[in-house]
Amino acid sequence: MKTSLAEHRSIRRFRPDPIPSEVLHDLLTAASRASTCGNMQLYSLVVTEDEQLREELAPCHFNQPMVRQAPCVITVCADIHRFSRWCELRGAEPCYDNFAWFLNAATDALLAAQNLCVEAEAHGLGVCYLGTTIYTAADIVRILELPSGVVPVTTVVAGYPDESPALTDRLPLEAVVHFEKYRDYTPERIGELWAEREASAETQRLLEENGLPNLAQIFTRNRYRAEDNLAISRSYFELLKKQGFFNN
Amino acid sequence: MKTSLAEHRSIRRFRPDPIPSEVLHDLLTAASRASTCGNMQLYSLVVTEDEQLREELAPCHFNQPMVRQAPCVITVCADIHRFSRWCELRGAEPCYDNFAWFLNAATDALLAAQNLCVEAEAHGLGVCYLGTTIYTAADIVRILELPSGVVPVTTVVAGYPDESPALTDRLPLEAVVHFEKYRDYTPERIGELWAEREASAETQRLLEENGLPNLAQIFTRNRYRAEDNLAISRSYFELLKKQGFFNN
Repeated sequence: MKTSLAEHRSIRRFRPDPIPSEVLHDLLTAASRASTCGNMQLYSLVVTEDEQLREELAPCHFNQPMVRQAPCVITVCADIHRFSRWCELRGAEPCYDNFAWFLNAATDALLAAQNLCVEAEAHGLGVCYLGTTIYTAADIVRILELPSGVVPVTTVVAGYPDESPALTDRLPLEAVVHFEKYRDYTPERIGELWAEREASAETQRLLEENGLPNLAQIFTRNRYRAEDNLAISRSYFELLKKQGFFNN
Repeated sequence: MKTSLAEHRSIRRFRPDPIPSEVLHDLLTAASRASTCGNMQLYSLVVTEDEQLREELAPCHFNQPMVRQAPCVITVCADIHRFSRWCELRGAEPCYDNFAWFLNAATDALLAAQNLCVEAEAHGLGVCYLGTTIYTAADIVRILELPSGVVPVTTVVAGYPDESPALTDRLPLEAVVHFEKYRDYTPERIGELWAEREASAETQRLLEENGLPNLAQIFTRNRYRAEDNLAISRSYFELLKKQGFFNN
């Protein structure tokens, strides 16, 4: 490896030290240099350091302690608003208020976010993505005053780490890579790919803790349940319509 | 900057040299270490090196020469199929065939893709994202034999560069960054943020070439037109339904 990307750990405990402004500037610069659709930069990064505002955002992330603890909460937004405003002011008719451009803008936003995280770790900072963002996106829109054409797609908390967790396991590389075409999975292959994880001490601990027969059921019955998944699907879809990504 | 992320250029001309397998392994390892929702790794990377298959993929990317020229075409897919198969085989009922999990899976896929690109550039390789992926995603599904629960979200071509383009301009950093909350754009501010780009020699060249009065109209009238945007929105949305991301 030519980078230290393989050393990434999500950090969930932070020291209170703020991120120096010149360091933050590097993070944001790295984000801004990511590939972007047609060089349109269809994203906005809302950098929230104010303690009161982080307090307001915390319930949107199920009060996970890192939102209050990390000195910097970066809400990563798909943004067709700024580009469309520019078009309108130039007598050009933008037509980006649709699903294709939600996808393009979300892609821009996520590539920028990952660059920000890579630069952050190179500075000795720790980061964690908050998947809760899409659960409560309408509340985040309200708190951060996101206009029509802007919607949050993820959140990154960043700060100096106050923990040094072990590397998380991953499936064997061949689980996620296909050569030439997609090669579908036989039951035997699924068994092989998950064997190590299923046999791990961590899994045994989780099974005892949850009183469930296997790891898959911890996901489907405890972590990501049908009723929640469907509620999030509906609420985010409605929000996309409200924020003007399904006008056409 | 602690990284060379600010030096990124998209590369569109490649030497024919293949990517050595140990280098490709590093790229894929970097991808696999990106943050992922609940450590579920809801993506697949389809690495296409076969010349005949790249030839088949080329029209999906509007025959841009780099698809035939780059030795390696990586189709980046949101994938709830593998995880759901595992659940089913363990007597767990997956409920990931919905919009929320398309978003989670697409996020996983894009963070992994960006890690792959960062590692690629650290190896002296060049990369380019192909936004055409969502235009013709149904054809890509057919060619790469993607099953239900899998959909392409972007494509990366990678290889050794045969050009060394100048750094692309970006809007001033403050255009995409908001501190604390979103700060909406006044017409004056839009003017300031776009001033340098609008005054550039490159823009003057484009205006003459296109016979249009300003840069914004090059976007709305030539590059990304309403009828295309709407057709892509519809076709990708239909594909998501067909691939089982709107079962609930």
